Amino acid sequence: MDARSEMLDLIRTRKYGYSLPQPFYTDPDFFKIDMELVWYREWLFVGHNCEIPRPGNYFTVQIGAYPVVIVRDRSGEIRAFHNSCRHRGSRVCTQAKGTSAKLVCPYHQWTYDLDGKLVFARQMADDFDPAAHSLKPVACENVAGYIFICLSNEPADFQAFRDLMEPYFAPHNLSDAKVAHEATIIEQGNWKLVWENNRECYHCAANHPELCKTYPEAPNVTGVSGGADDPEMTAHWEKCEAAGLPARFHMHESGQFRAIRAPLLHNAVSYTMNGQPAVRRNLTDIDTDRIGALMLFNYPSTWNHVLKDHAVTFRVTPISATETAVTTKWLVHKNAVEGVDYDVENLTHVWNHTNDQDRQIVEENARGILSPAYEPGPYSEVHEGGVMQFVEWYAAFMEPRLSGKSSSVHLKEIA
Amino acid sequence: MDARSEMLDLIRTRKYGYSLPQPFYTDPDFFKIDMELVWYREWLFVGHNCEIPRPGNYFTVQIGAYPVVIVRDRSGEIRAFHNSCRHRGSRVCTQAKGTSAKLVCPYHQWTYDLDGKLVFARQMADDFDPAAHSLKPVACENVAGYIFICLSNEPADFQAFRDLMEPYFAPHNLSDAKVAHEATIIEQGNWKLVWENNRECYHCAANHPELCKTYPEAPNVTGVSGGADDPEMTAHWEKCEAAGLPARFHMHESGQFRAIRAPLLHNAVSYTMNGQPAVRRNLTDIDTDRIGALMLFNYPSTWNHVLKDHAVTFRVTPISATETAVTTKWLVHKNAVEGVDYDVENLTHVWNHTNDQDRQIVEENARGILSPAYEPGPYSEVHEGGVMQFVEWYAAFMEPRLSGKSSSVHLKEIA
Amino acid sequence: MDARSEMLDLIRTRKYGYSLPQPFYTDPDFFKIDMELVWYREWLFVGHNCEIPRPGNYFTVQIGAYPVVIVRDRSGEIRAFHNSCRHRGSRVCTQAKGTSAKLVCPYHQWTYDLDGKLVFARQMADDFDPAAHSLKPVACENVAGYIFICLSNEPADFQAFRDLMEPYFAPHNLSDAKVAHEATIIEQGNWKLVWENNRECYHCAANHPELCKTYPEAPNVTGVSGGADDPEMTAHWEKCEAAGLPARFHMHESGQFRAIRAPLLHNAVSYTMNGQPAVRRNLTDIDTDRIGALMLFNYPSTWNHVLKDHAVTFRVTPISATETAVTTKWLVHKNAVEGVDYDVENLTHVWNHTNDQDRQIVEENARGILSPAYEPGPYSEVHEGGVMQFVEWYAAFMEPRLSGKSSSVHLKEIA
Repeated sequence: MDARSEMLDLIRTRKYGYSLPQPFYTDPDFFKIDMELVWYREWLFVGHNCEIPRPGNYFTVQIGAYPVVIVRDRSGEIRAFHNSCRHRGSRVCTQAKGTSAKLVCPYHQWTYDLDGKLVFARQMADDFDPAAHSLKPVACENVAGYIFICLSNEPADFQAFRDLMEPYFAPHNLSDAKVAHEATIIEQGNWKLVWENNRECYHCAANHPELCKTYPEAPNVTGVSGGADDPEMTAHWEKCEAAGLPARFHMHESGQFRAIRAPLLHNAVSYTMNGQPAVRRNLTDIDTDRIGALMLFNYPSTWNHVLKDHAVTFRVTPISATETAVTTKWLVHKNAVEGVDYDVENLTHVWNHTNDQDRQIVEENARGILSPAYEPGPYSEVHEGGVMQFVEWYAAFMEPRLSGKSSSVHLKEIA
Repeated sequence: MDARSEMLDLIRTRKYGYSLPQPFYTDPDFFKIDMELVWYREWLFVGHNCEIPRPGNYFTVQIGAYPVVIVRDRSGEIRAFHNSCRHRGSRVCTQAKGTSAKLVCPYHQWTYDLDGKLVFARQMADDFDPAAHSLKPVACENVAGYIFICLSNEPADFQAFRDLMEPYFAPHNLSDAKVAHEATIIEQGNWKLVWENNRECYHCAANHPELCKTYPEAPNVTGVSGGADDPEMTAHWEKCEAAGLPARFHMHESGQFRAIRAPLLHNAVSYTMNGQPAVRRNLTDIDTDRIGALMLFNYPSTWNHVLKDHAVTFRVTPISATETAVTTKWLVHKNAVEGVDYDVENLTHVWNHTNDQDRQIVEENARGILSPAYEPGPYSEVHEGGVMQFVEWYAAFMEPRLSGKSSSVHLKEIA
Repeated sequence: MDARSEMLDLIRTRKYGYSLPQPFYTDPDFFKIDMELVWYREWLFVGHNCEIPRPGNYFTVQIGAYPVVIVRDRSGEIRAFHNSCRHRGSRVCTQAKGTSAKLVCPYHQWTYDLDGKLVFARQMADDFDPAAHSLKPVACENVAGYIFICLSNEPADFQAFRDLMEPYFAPHNLSDAKVAHEATIIEQGNWKLVWENNRECYHCAANHPELCKTYPEAPNVTGVSGGADDPEMTAHWEKCEAAGLPARFHMHESGQFRAIRAPLLHNAVSYTMNGQPAVRRNLTDIDTDRIGALMLFNYPSTWNHVLKDHAVTFRVTPISATETAVTTKWLVHKNAVEGVDYDVENLTHVWNHTNDQDRQIVEENARGILSPAYEPGPYSEVHEGGVMQFVEWYAAFMEPRLSGKSSSVHLKEIA
């Protein structure tokens, strides 16, 4: 049985409410299928538009085997390209970020305009056609300060996500933010374990002392129960919405993304050790206090917490069946001054510790699952509803793509 | 031809008295078969009962893909469990050794009694059955201070080994010992090369200057010729047995384990540079002098040297086709005091050097065997009888298991 | 489709004048075929005879899975052997270089004469035949100071290369040289990318500031256009040949090797920052000035630059589909005295920098080619004729060997 048939079979025979069978977390062939059907097909968060504010600003990312460069062109539009020269394939942009009037390949100086067009290639044959050698474009969308790309030649729909996300995020004006700090950690575990850990707070009390000072471990905050039956939650929503901040729980019917604005604990307004703001200059001029945390996830690549004074954004990048990178960025208003308006250590303390604690948890989870004695165990419906929802989304997403019944499956494209 | 058929074919066509064909030492598929048919089926030495003297003491080991925890329960019995939580699979015990009243998973605090029973799982569904979610047991035996486990659900026979070993070891009272020092080295070579090196002393004179001060390189000591025709050897046996110490060469008919008590060189009584005791307080009150070394091997996991003043035990752990860990422990009486009764450097000097020399030898052997120009070469029957015996044991062990003619083969179990 | 069929198919359908399809640069199975059909069959440069001037001098190399020792025997002849003991396979010579009256295996002291004969094996059985256990020979040739070996049991023809190379190199008397410095770097790229980079100077102006002070980037120097239509070049040839130095462009009909003597820039005589000699004592007593650089390549293992005062030789060693070692040696006259006649930093400055720059280029090329978005791009016929020639040689070399139409293909040998 080939890996796709085996995966389909295991998806169909798995036990509802239980963790997945071992190969989903460990098998290199299953990982390859995840890359092809999920990561090379879906929209992925790669960074913020405020990171490339001016024409010629660019940053590079690596997604599986694909190097990609994201650049702001001369008209101010953000574009993404496959970062491989059309001459002999060299990476064109070799730095993590930079600024360049044109994109010049370091090998033989083939030179591309910021819109990808080849404008210079030294002494090629007379019949050489520069127009046929532009950088290959990658689908790219820019919404409320977030840049998403899709590696597929027939990109999935983005509008539904934009429609859901934009109203929640627009008030926070993240296009006028800056990245005050960024950190990437490698977790020795499959990307789905990283998500499973993220989608519940059942583990928080015993593992995250810093985060638990301000973040509620109640399942209706992290999970997908919504919280409409919780008077504190609904009161919070009403207050925020009265102030023009969309707040109530909203999940797309596919289960792939949801937004919610939830209150923090004990009058806290920020993820600090004492709940006080980490930044003096707020992201926006919203005049309501204690707006809590706007939370958004979008499978498979990002979860987010937007506060009044700053935002913390997370990007997931799978590396192998048993390795995943998580990049965290702390965004503050672009005019906030380090050392005056905020202190980086204070700003990042809670999540740097939380991330490292999560890394340890995920790695022990991964080590135990490698045992041939591992068998799927039951989730707690009360506390791990979010995990169940993630697993159900994944299974529902994969099943038609593996069985060829999805209209968006293009087997030839990925063969 | 699949790897099992190829291995069976090579076992059947190999040349008697010659080293094995290359893939037995290098091929990842052959390694996988070794793991499945040998390491996941046979009894393996994992540590000493004196390392977990009190209820709640535990240590963890990793055998191939299996994490295992060995713990002394409240009744004093030693038990082993698959170290993978029945909830979502996390390792439960994450430290190399420790003490705990219960085994608590760090992820969500599922809590197991020392007998493996699940006694706490927060807010699970009403129909959740804790009794169905105990830690999975691993077969575990405790003999004369040695703990052995067997990962198979239908463990191989242990009684024959116990019958052979116990009389030799009981007088040394290792249950009242302590580990004075332990060291693990990684050798870049297949586990069978580690054993082949161990089973002969043909290489000793040129490679082990420290060991050769006290340890005889005569083949009847290391090898399997027995030594019944050697008057010095038989005199030693008679002397020891008169003192109540079983001594004569005894190998099980399967060839998997043997014990012998042999004299050291030049009136030496211990593995030190001058042959003098390394420890003032002996392991037991045997009043005979110069009892030599009690040697035991049990394929595939351990060889041992027990002296009057201390014992040196070795544990073999395969890591990959070309990597093997060897853990050495020096045991002394539990009341011996470091710095007073023994000096760790003096105690460990000879075997730390010998181990490192063996590592170099094994690694050069492995490098040369990787050459496509390698072909099996002839063993010296005089000096390498022990190696031939190991290779014959391995071949005889594998052949029926590969051909499906062994009653102890359960193909489904390992499929 | 198996890897050989796939490779053959891609060779037959590739576009002329374009870089190769991705798997040639990245696929582990394609790499294995390269090793079997190219590296384990062709003559490979391994070192200089001046490195082992006296009987018993040896050095070791590793080529793919093969460890090999090259030794000067008692009669002064240079020989090569598989460096794997005929006893149990250990490497016999474990150091990079050394001197030994006999080759003694460190494991059990099996002892071989410098001609490979087994002369001592302790206590083997009576019917043991030492004559059947000599070290296995490797084909070895020595030409004008260069040692080449061929791992095939039926070595390819060497005479054609000897005939071409010897007249050019003999005047430089490299047998009387010494290695003043040697450096090995690992480039994270396929060996063919290392060659493609070497076979053009289209990239030099922007990447090699040090080299470009003396080395001309004109394509007729690096490439294969010859240069017979360039008056400066032909004048140089005439001048050199009048002085007894073969000079004009000469490429073997197979395209596998070529020699040419080209002038350096601006009256430079050596690869230094100011073009002045790096060594006061010349390699030979040629009394002509400004003889430029004698350049030789021999696919797949070496390219070379021989100047009046010193020589720089390069050896390529593939490690994996995406890793290649490049060893550079700087040769000066054996009587030149370091600190008096030459300064190592000055001697090696240009090429150490150039090598590191090439490493970066190759690595970025390799990273970009890993992208699934990579597709073969067009070479510049003017500037990359040498690259095209290399690719054509490779394709022409592989095609008959893959299709079984080459008389020199021995499929069983490599199966």
